[in-house]
Amino acid sequence: MKVVVLFSGGKDSALASILLEPFFDVELATFAFGPYDTDGAAVEAAKVLNLPHRTIVFDDEVLEEALRMLQAAGYPRDGLNLLHRRALEILSRDEEFLADGTKREDRVPMMTPDGVRSLEDRNNVHYIRPLAGYGSKTINALASSYMDFETLNSELRPASDFEVGLRMALVERFGQDEVTRIFPALHMHTRVIRRKRI
Amino acid sequence: MKVVVLFSGGKDSALASILLEPFFDVELATFAFGPYDTDGAAVEAAKVLNLPHRTIVFDDEVLEEALRMLQAAGYPRDGLNLLHRRALEILSRDEEFLADGTKREDRVPMMTPDGVRSLEDRNNVHYIRPLAGYGSKTINALASSYMDFETLNSELRPASDFEVGLRMALVERFGQDEVTRIFPALHMHTRVIRRKRI
Repeated sequence: MKVVVLFSGGKDSALASILLEPFFDVELATFAFGPYDTDGAAVEAAKVLNLPHRTIVFDDEVLEEALRMLQAAGYPRDGLNLLHRRALEILSRDEEFLADGTKREDRVPMMTPDGVRSLEDRNNVHYIRPLAGYGSKTINALASSYMDFETLNSELRPASDFEVGLRMALVERFGQDEVTRIFPALHMHTRVIRRKRI
Repeated sequence: MKVVVLFSGGKDSALASILLEPFFDVELATFAFGPYDTDGAAVEAAKVLNLPHRTIVFDDEVLEEALRMLQAAGYPRDGLNLLHRRALEILSRDEEFLADGTKREDRVPMMTPDGVRSLEDRNNVHYIRPLAGYGSKTINALASSYMDFETLNSELRPASDFEVGLRMALVERFGQDEVTRIFPALHMHTRVIRRKRI
């Protein structure tokens, strides 16, 4: 059985993939917006993990819809949830098993229980959250056992997550002030730099 | 790293154990009440899975407390949650990593998010729910890949779960009517009968 894991290049989605690997053929998928090549970190991390990877570019209107939600709300939650949902819907067209690295303490992105049921039933897919039953402390212990990773400021070295692309679009169109209005000042992310075999 | 998994002999706690096995030394633990030998199904299933197993007998007052809750409420939820919490607390005395087979759709037994944080922080343990991010459909697909299991009526062949011991105590002390007042008519359970290696 094959599973496609939403992958940002960070420790959580990497650990989710490692937990699935004994039971599935794991493929990593990173979503990006047409104008911005944000998938570099994920491509590198996938090589380090030695797992197949592909980048999927959202249709332009998805970025527009997400930006409208961000700007209307003034905070990123709804826009990030939209992108997460859209990404899973797109994968559902061709895949049977989907997964991501969302964990027990995560609040965004997060589907509602009804949203999960709807995704699975409408598309006849299985949506798996391997880290849903793991707390941050446990994830850090396991991640440290299976990989080396570093924590980075996304302004200096961009992550391959949704937030980086959204920030780029906001800066380009509306300037840094609009980013500052909507997003927290600092966007840190983790990046896998070595896989350990134990 | 060693993890101790709460084990009833059924498909969910068996699958939780199988998912943890590539990453931990898995030991299975089944809880029972002093007067009732309810661990037989779990002992057999642990042999089939080829995983080490032990039975832990609750102190007598735990059964008394659970029965009081059942009878006061008139439904089993609070008593079952109490036993689940007590079992995890007892394991926390000697173990660092605990797990169970509760899944995404389960409602009972289930700890609240605050309860989980409290368990982990007070006892300095990691509590893992490997199936928390898996729906029933996915669990059935995976369980069928890794084991043969059967579905049984617990009145004919008792499971090694909390409910069976509670029903036995209620029948003995108060008669079948009290069981009927508190529990659903039919208690079905699954039992692992063969492990498949794929």
